[in-house]
Amino acid sequence: MTNAPIAFLSDFGDSHYAGQMKGVVLSNAPGVPIVDLTHAIAPQNVVEAAHVLAESVDAFPAGTVFVCVVDPGVGTARRGVAFESNGRFFVGPDNGVFTLVARGGIGAAVVLENPAYFRTPVAATFHGRDVFAPVAARIARGVPLGELGPPAGALRTIDLPVPAVTDGRIDAHFLYADRFGNLVTDVPGALVAEGAWAVLVCGRRLRGVRRTYSDVQPGKPVALVGSSGRVEIAVRDGSAAERFHVKDPAKVRVRFIRKKKG
Amino acid sequence: MTNAPIAFLSDFGDSHYAGQMKGVVLSNAPGVPIVDLTHAIAPQNVVEAAHVLAESVDAFPAGTVFVCVVDPGVGTARRGVAFESNGRFFVGPDNGVFTLVARGGIGAAVVLENPAYFRTPVAATFHGRDVFAPVAARIARGVPLGELGPPAGALRTIDLPVPAVTDGRIDAHFLYADRFGNLVTDVPGALVAEGAWAVLVCGRRLRGVRRTYSDVQPGKPVALVGSSGRVEIAVRDGSAAERFHVKDPAKVRVRFIRKKKG
Amino acid sequence: MTNAPIAFLSDFGDSHYAGQMKGVVLSNAPGVPIVDLTHAIAPQNVVEAAHVLAESVDAFPAGTVFVCVVDPGVGTARRGVAFESNGRFFVGPDNGVFTLVARGGIGAAVVLENPAYFRTPVAATFHGRDVFAPVAARIARGVPLGELGPPAGALRTIDLPVPAVTDGRIDAHFLYADRFGNLVTDVPGALVAEGAWAVLVCGRRLRGVRRTYSDVQPGKPVALVGSSGRVEIAVRDGSAAERFHVKDPAKVRVRFIRKKKG
Repeated sequence: MTNAPIAFLSDFGDSHYAGQMKGVVLSNAPGVPIVDLTHAIAPQNVVEAAHVLAESVDAFPAGTVFVCVVDPGVGTARRGVAFESNGRFFVGPDNGVFTLVARGGIGAAVVLENPAYFRTPVAATFHGRDVFAPVAARIARGVPLGELGPPAGALRTIDLPVPAVTDGRIDAHFLYADRFGNLVTDVPGALVAEGAWAVLVCGRRLRGVRRTYSDVQPGKPVALVGSSGRVEIAVRDGSAAERFHVKDPAKVRVRFIRKKKG
Repeated sequence: MTNAPIAFLSDFGDSHYAGQMKGVVLSNAPGVPIVDLTHAIAPQNVVEAAHVLAESVDAFPAGTVFVCVVDPGVGTARRGVAFESNGRFFVGPDNGVFTLVARGGIGAAVVLENPAYFRTPVAATFHGRDVFAPVAARIARGVPLGELGPPAGALRTIDLPVPAVTDGRIDAHFLYADRFGNLVTDVPGALVAEGAWAVLVCGRRLRGVRRTYSDVQPGKPVALVGSSGRVEIAVRDGSAAERFHVKDPAKVRVRFIRKKKG
Repeated sequence: MTNAPIAFLSDFGDSHYAGQMKGVVLSNAPGVPIVDLTHAIAPQNVVEAAHVLAESVDAFPAGTVFVCVVDPGVGTARRGVAFESNGRFFVGPDNGVFTLVARGGIGAAVVLENPAYFRTPVAATFHGRDVFAPVAARIARGVPLGELGPPAGALRTIDLPVPAVTDGRIDAHFLYADRFGNLVTDVPGALVAEGAWAVLVCGRRLRGVRRTYSDVQPGKPVALVGSSGRVEIAVRDGSAAERFHVKDPAKVRVRFIRKKKG
């Protein structure tokens, strides 16, 4: 076994569901490094999970096995899958959570149908523990994907927000609010050169896309290119989600307008 | 040293108390795998801890050392104990948190009285860091239980909710609400065959115990056998605790009524 | 590589920001033990972080590399630093978070200026992932501090609350509320012998500093020397922060008055 870790992404919070998955991993791959990418995905929010996963993959080493359990359809006919992409492995429900990662190209992909690698009995409501965790442990130990089940063909994709770009204007969406209340948009930083665009959010006009929080005074809102590479709306030393009373970021729009040249 | 992990269960949340315990473990057992079962037990809720621990033990490998710190009586005369059960080890306060695990049979059990294995000085309010963590590290390194103190005799047990089963009716309790607001009852799944029982909860009648969330429409309540093996009340894509306004699950009752055969 | 761990302290909560930092560590130091001291520091609260770090260092083994990311000034001219103190290493922003740790004496200290050890490109808003994590991984692998940049000279310190001690009276502050709502003061336990001081908090007079929670009845407030070595105000089986309606502990004062001898 290499030192490649198993990384978890889920909506389980700090619950024993996350802990049980780790126990199952260690039961099947003793000593494998385990790392939490996050368990703070909003419950059953596949869209948030897809974005957070895609933004985070590059931070992890080749060989990492990502176990992604945001799985509102557990117990239905939705497939469990495992696949390889750019030297990393992914295990989870085929419900669209891999939409963005798969755009980077995927290698082998299989449907998890070989019960020899499951925990038994499989609970109808917790495939994270009984299917995905034991399968991930075996992948970490070097079991070839082909042992886990037949080829998966194309994975399921879901529609994800895309900004509408027209001449001089971008109508955009919020993907999620982060731990600090920063509101992350679907606008890549490359689209909006620093200083050249005004930002309209919740009736407020921000004067431009800045470099960092401290480009504005404490307590003031600011648009900047965040660590995800996308434009975020933040409040320096505060919470943009609170300031703008945003409870469900997916329901709020944000508009960018190109400034006229002086 | 083997690769057997030390697993933590506590009510410390994501606080530095959990982190300090891990530091002490690594100070006394360098390189031992550490895994969080959960730190999200409701503060000082020994009953919840006892159930979560018992449900989770099987997910972990033989040799795992469970450190269980839900300890409202810290600093009183309550004993600290360590024991072996079914090839796993348990360390914590003798306050009833081990009631369910011990029903599976226990091997050697000792009272933690040998200060050579404590961190010094021992804080009166934090035996998790100063007694249980360093003792667990030594057990992981192979120190025999007998080195830690004298035999413990019987461990303390606490009364735990038990459903009252009469002909055609089960009067049951909620043990806790999980991360998703699912309300976990004390009714083993084996008691209630799928479809044969109606469920009365907070004035609402559910038509039967189903297999999985998607057996009802989104937003609808459902009773099913959860991953704990017990019946849970859930709301598909929602929170049963919120739907039924349950703040303290222990104070709410739930009744199962056998349906008449058609 | 030794088994010395990398320990994280941040205000990231259970977010993917913490997870991404761990991924970067494992990308640069495969197999290094990773441990969360805590990610529950209140957002951007450097004072709380300084205290929690200082209280926790001793729990960790020699060689531990602490990565401390409470960094409201990220992207400004504030320096990134790494230093050694009492056999442990520290990496983070030079914003005062190390004020207390540095009082214990520091050895080599450097400014993080060598981009060869950074992740590229460095995001202006997330040096935790792109500077501190990869640097910490290299320190854990044995890279000498001198490779990371030039000598730092004195580190920045911030004013931290200090109790005003006069004859028979101590005017003190609260540093933070912990997971249980215990209010931690800046008064060292050694200052107030058990039973000799009355405590005034939010208009309530507590009769003395006690040894442990159970020295009062359930539901009653109590002053005691906590696991941090400082006096805390707690409520047995409850939350002092809730009882006394304390939202921002830094804004509340607490007074100790020496009792007259009988």
